[in-house]
Formats: sequence, C-alpha cells, structure tokens
Amino acid sequence: MDYFFYPSSVAVFGSFKKGAIAHEILRNVVEGGFEGKIIPVNPKGGTVEVAGRAFQIRERLDEAVDTAIIAIPARLVPSLIDEIGPLIKGAVVISAGFSEVGNEELERELVEKAKRHGVRVIGPNCAGIFGVHGNFFGSFEVRVNPGGLALISQSGAFGGAALAMGNDEGIGFSAFVSYGNAADLNESDFLEYFADDENTKVIALYIEGVRDGRKFLNALRYAAARKPVIILKAGKSKSGARAAASHTGSLAGSYEIYRAAFRQAGAIEVEEMEELFDAARAFEMYSKAGMRVAVITNSGGPGVLATDKLERLGLEIAMLSEKTVDELRSFLPPQCSVKNPVDLIADADYERYRRTMEVVCRDENVDALLVICVPPIFLSSEEIARAIIEASCDKPVIANFMAGELTRDGVELLERHGIKNFPTPERAAKAIRWLSMRDL
Amino acid sequence: MDYFFYPSSVAVFGSFKKGAIAHEILRNVVEGGFEGKIIPVNPKGGTVEVAGRAFQIRERLDEAVDTAIIAIPARLVPSLIDEIGPLIKGAVVISAGFSEVGNEELERELVEKAKRHGVRVIGPNCAGIFGVHGNFFGSFEVRVNPGGLALISQSGAFGGAALAMGNDEGIGFSAFVSYGNAADLNESDFLEYFADDENTKVIALYIEGVRDGRKFLNALRYAAARKPVIILKAGKSKSGARAAASHTGSLAGSYEIYRAAFRQAGAIEVEEMEELFDAARAFEMYSKAGMRVAVITNSGGPGVLATDKLERLGLEIAMLSEKTVDELRSFLPPQCSVKNPVDLIADADYERYRRTMEVVCRDENVDALLVICVPPIFLSSEEIARAIIEASCDKPVIANFMAGELTRDGVELLERHGIKNFPTPERAAKAIRWLSMRDL
Repeated sequence: MDYFFYPSSVAVFGSFKKGAIAHEILRNVVEGGFEGKIIPVNPKGGTVEVAGRAFQIRERLDEAVDTAIIAIPARLVPSLIDEIGPLIKGAVVISAGFSEVGNEELERELVEKAKRHGVRVIGPNCAGIFGVHGNFFGSFEVRVNPGGLALISQSGAFGGAALAMGNDEGIGFSAFVSYGNAADLNESDFLEYFADDENTKVIALYIEGVRDGRKFLNALRYAAARKPVIILKAGKSKSGARAAASHTGSLAGSYEIYRAAFRQAGAIEVEEMEELFDAARAFEMYSKAGMRVAVITNSGGPGVLATDKLERLGLEIAMLSEKTVDELRSFLPPQCSVKNPVDLIADADYERYRRTMEVVCRDENVDALLVICVPPIFLSSEEIARAIIEASCDKPVIANFMAGELTRDGVELLERHGIKNFPTPERAAKAIRWLSMRDL
Repeated sequence: MDYFFYPSSVAVFGSFKKGAIAHEILRNVVEGGFEGKIIPVNPKGGTVEVAGRAFQIRERLDEAVDTAIIAIPARLVPSLIDEIGPLIKGAVVISAGFSEVGNEELERELVEKAKRHGVRVIGPNCAGIFGVHGNFFGSFEVRVNPGGLALISQSGAFGGAALAMGNDEGIGFSAFVSYGNAADLNESDFLEYFADDENTKVIALYIEGVRDGRKFLNALRYAAARKPVIILKAGKSKSGARAAASHTGSLAGSYEIYRAAFRQAGAIEVEEMEELFDAARAFEMYSKAGMRVAVITNSGGPGVLATDKLERLGLEIAMLSEKTVDELRSFLPPQCSVKNPVDLIADADYERYRRTMEVVCRDENVDALLVICVPPIFLSSEEIARAIIEASCDKPVIANFMAGELTRDGVELLERHGIKNFPTPERAAKAIRWLSMRDL
C-alpha cells in the first residue's frame, strides 16, 4: 500500500471551485509540499490555482499515477474507476452516497470495477488519507506535524477532530486514514500495513465495529506484536451501539467480545478520546515501561495526587534503596522528603532536579520516573525543563509541568527536545500505566 | 470574614526587594486594581515602586487596617501579631517554618497572640488569598478573572497551579484561599463563609485531611445545601496518605470515611484535577440538571462516544417523544437521524442546529442537551456557536466543539456568551453527570 501513503504521483477528481472538496484536497496536497506529479481532473477542463501554483485541469486522466482521489457524485464513481482502472494502483473514494444511505448495489459495483483492474479502494464515504513523511496530504482535513503516530479512523469526523486536536496536543503523525464504508480495504489491512511501516512508532485505531472478526484479531495480533496499538472503541453501551449502527452501519456486537479480543492481542484500550492522545504521546516517546514508579516533585499536593492515581491504576510506588536515600540525603536540604514521592520543595532549582533524577534513575528498584514541576514565582520553568532534558537517565521519564501560562516556556522547551508534557498529575500517571501494559 | 475577602485596607509585611514574596504580593494587590488603602511595612523603611505607583514603606504599622499579609521570617511573626493586633482584624501569614517543619510551639504562640487581640489567622505556611470581586489579590499567585468559583486549597502549590490552569480553562473565580497549616481558620470556616458569599456560585475544595471531622461534616452540609461543593481529596491511596502525612502533616485517615461524609453531605467528589475544572465550569453555568439527556451532533462518531459515556455514567439517553420526532422529520433532511443521538450530518448549518435544539428542548422527556460540533471545512464554527447562543431553550445545554484551531472562533464566541466548551464528548458527558448529582 505504499502507493497510498508514499505515492510518487496523484490525480484528484472533482470540482475545483473554491471551497469544493476536490479543491480543498488539491490545496492540501500542494501546500503540504508533495513533490510528485499532481494532476487535477474534471471533464470541464479549465485551470485552477492553489498556493500560488497554476494547474491545467485535464479533461480525463491520460497517464499512469499511483493513486486517484475521487470526490465526484457517487453514481459516477464506478464508471470512472472502470475508465481509469488501467492507469492507477489505488483509489481513495471521498464521495458519499453508497451503502451508508442504502445504496449497497452502487458500492458493490464500485468494488467489482476496481477488482477487475486490480485497483485497491479506500472508502467510499471517507475523509481521505495522509502519508505525512512523504508530504502527502490527500484529504481535506487539517494538516499535521510529522511524527510517529498512524491514526486509523472509521469515522471521518472523529479523525478530522483528532488531527486538529493532535496539533494542539503536540502529537506528531506518520499517517492518517479514514476508511469510511470499508468496501474494499479495512482496519485490518491498515493495521498490518502500519505494523511494518518504519515511520510509524505507534498505531491508534478508532472503530465502531468490524465485519470480519477473525481477520481483525489476526491483524491486531500481528500489529501489537510489533508496536503499540491503542484502540478507542465506540458503541460500547446499548444506546451507543444503536447509534453506531445508524451511523456507520456497524453491527457493534457485544462489547465484551471486543474487549477480550483487544486484550488477547495485546492492544491497549483507552476509554476516552483524550486518553487516546495521551497514550499516543507516551508511546511516541517510549515503547514500554516497568511498573515501579518514582515520583519527583517540587510541590507536595500534586505529588500526592500522582501517587494516588498510580496506586489506583495498579502501579507500584517504588521503594527507594537505602543507597539512594543516603545519596539523596547527602545533597538535598533537610526539609526535602527523600521517600517516594521525593519532594524537592518549592525552591528546587536545576541542580537539585537533575541530581535527584540521576540518583533515582540509577536505583534498581525504579522502572520509570514521573517528574512534577509547579514553578514558583522565583524560578523559571525553563530551568527545570533543562534539568529534565540534561539529566542522564535511561529509563522512561514522564513530565507533568503545570500552571498554565507560567509553564509555557518550560513546556515548549521540553517539546522541542521530544519530551511531551502531561498537563495534570493524573494524566501523567495514566501515561505510565499505558507504557507498562507493553512490558509483559 | 469580609475583612479578608472584601477588605477596605491592607498592610503587607516583608521585604520589598524585587522578586521577594512581599514585593510580589504588593505588585499583585496594586496591579489587580485594589481601591482601598495599601500600606507596605518594613522596619528598614524606604520606598518601593510597583506598577508605576510609588509607596513610602512604613517602619511600623501606625493605623488600623482590615487585613495584614505577613511574609517575614517565621520566628518574628508572633511578636509582630502581638504588636499590630490592636490595629488589624485578620492576618494572612505566608511565612513558612511552623508546624510543617516541627515548630509546633511557634505556631501555638502565633495563635495565642492572635486570640488575645481577637485577630483571625489564615495560614501560616500558605500562599495567600484572593477576593476577586473586590479586586483584592492578596497572594503571589497569578491573578484570575472574576466569576463564580471559590477555590479553597490546603496545598498552596495545588492552588497556584489550579489558578493558572483555570485561566487557560476559561474559569471565573470569586475567591481563592490557601490555608496552609490551618492554625486558626480552616476548610470548615471557609466552606461556611463562601456558602453565604453572594458572588460565589460554586465552591471547590482541595483537601488532604481535616482535623475536626464533625465540624467539617457540618460545614460541608451547610455549604452543599446552599450551592454546589466540589471536592478533590488527595491521599486516598496507602502511599498517597503517607505522602500527605509528610506534606501537610495531615492524618489522611480512612478514605472510606471521607467518601461517606462527602456523599452524606451532598458534595460532589471528583477523581482528577481536570475534573475539578470541568465540574466548576459546569456549575458556573447551571446549578443542576436532570438525568435524561439528548445528544445533538453533526458527526456520528463523536455522538456515539458521548452516548457511550452518558450511559456508562448512569445517565439516560432520553427517549424523544413522537411529537418531537415528527417535528424534526418535518424540516431535517432525510439522511439525518431523528433518534437520540440526533445526527444533523456534516452540512448542518445555523438554522438546522437552532431549530433542532428548540424542538428537542421542548420535549418533556428531555432534561439536558449535549450539543456536539465538529466543523466541516465549509462551515464556520462561529455560525454553529451562534445557533447555540440564540436557540431559545430553558434547559441546561453543554457544548462540545472540537477540532483544535478550527473551532477556536466558535469556542471564543460561546465563552463570550457565558457558554463554556468541553473539549471532548466524554468530558461534556461528565459535566452533565455532575450537574445531575445536584438534582436530587
């Protein structure tokens, strides 16, 4: 499927009037810096200008391309596929109006024409795809930053919202695919593909239901054995399942069966959209973590909240070794607490944070560090961020800087060094929990 | 306690060198627009300039003021209180170095001197207080916007972080108090005070432990009968309780007992810091909501997620009346789903949202509305925000606009009209759950 996510040429079919779907996709492809050939196609011909580049709109496709992105009226799609089939490898069908509104026959026809030419299809009724590391933004959704997350979404709107929110949350993406009605390729195919995609470090999947349970379980096992797979399953409740059925036509089936399958395959299930982001951020940094956590903080209350949450999630509050305690005692002020959570108190500076992290990190009883900073007025959050960046520690470190604008500079510095910030102690604790689920 | 939260005059004791605590507090008081008399005091005298205003530093306090804010070395505090006792009503003691580091005797002395003069004390070892509607920012913490939330925090750092994060989350505050060691006034006194404070619509409380359980239960009952009280209890786990003990010296006690007390009193307990904000935002808008929720959305996936979460939280997915369904059918396009969740599909505009909200709101089976918007590229989120603002509906409406930068304008418009946005379907669902806990 490299022709979808790393194409060397692409044709876009549809209306290129401003605001039309095909126009927006063309704009995204061009603005996103795609370096391959780009061919807009519309029987009416003409020209279109996007991002300062003028394109001749071809009346028909007359040369081979890797992928066609199709946003024309549904009833015209099968014959288009039949016409261009010999020239393309893959088709992304954005157009709606197929099985999701009862037009099963039209969808069958679409698939049949594609099969005849050996063309694979994403969609129909989808929001398109991104291959971020190939600068290919084949969707009207907001473009994202490069990184390690491949997002596979059954719901286009969920996917679009998640991309835009991912930008806010500092997530880097390797790819995005909204697969809509899954007439041909579906979640299982994408799981397998991204499992072997070297730019993808973590896969996130939003599903309402799957059609072929056995294929899905195999694909999930294959992928989860290679990299973290995070799943947000919608349609878990009775009313939710009913709503899903009317939305994607998914027979959501018993949630218990899904849940068992996720566990069996070693996937990581999250309960909320926000958790999907947090888990993705954690796995962009680390592939796993052990269960024994040390909390290092400059403020008691947040340290207690982190400790509560860690214990509640089944993680261990690491028992620091005598050697560690003695070493910490040797340089920390007497008011500091050298038990876990280690409380460096409010005036903790660069040196205190860095040395403490290094000593605690060397402790054999410690698998991961949760480092909290609530900057007091007389210290810059950047200084503490620098301590975290420069501390030499080969174990996972999860940061929780908090206090809105007061931590903005520190958080930005962390992010520039690939360290993602979790905005509350509880969200930081959950991040470690997800990492630990991969350490089996 | 009006002399604390609505003082007409204040004296600040400490060092007025740049960056020193007393200097920062003075700056906050002046910049915050306090209109009463402000008197900086330091035995060395001199002058200090903050925010373009020059002050003569008095060598001693020589006239009566409502409140003294004290940030001088701990050992000097009792004698200062004894000296100025006849001139003040309340003292906020920022200074640390009392019972929290084992100096119980010094703390007893402080209280005894204050009692002798009938002076009430907040602290010691605290971060200060805000009376936001009196423009009184008697703390070094970041200033906040006026609104309905009174935040009572045992932990200064938690309080400071919460204020700064509250600004980011669009929360408006009526007051803030960090009460530190609670040598004199404690959480119970503040609960009772804010229960009767007319600017306070909702009270949020961060506690690790309380000393007088009976007094606390009575105060909590009193307050919760008058307005929503949200509690975040830290030190719930074994390790958390141990950490709390070394932090505030709180004997956290059995969490089960606290939990029972919260329930019995009708307070709303939240599990995470983020939930404290979300619950506060919900209660700034509404005092309560019923259990039967209608979800209105323009995108299926997020609608399913909201439905899942609502059902999981024990809320009801309202069964719309036949009349409502018929009315919706009469003007909605046929692809829309008129069951709950009502799916207005991607091209829903102002008119479709507004009319749907009004029809659903009139349904007797509906107690509250959860309105989701994932703006497609061809619609502005402001248009949908306007529909929500202008729809005539007398039931609680909780909004979930999502897609990062794409919803920024819509979210800002909502907030300008006092409608707070919840950034994910699940957080919106939880907001309704908390509101419904007051509808007993």
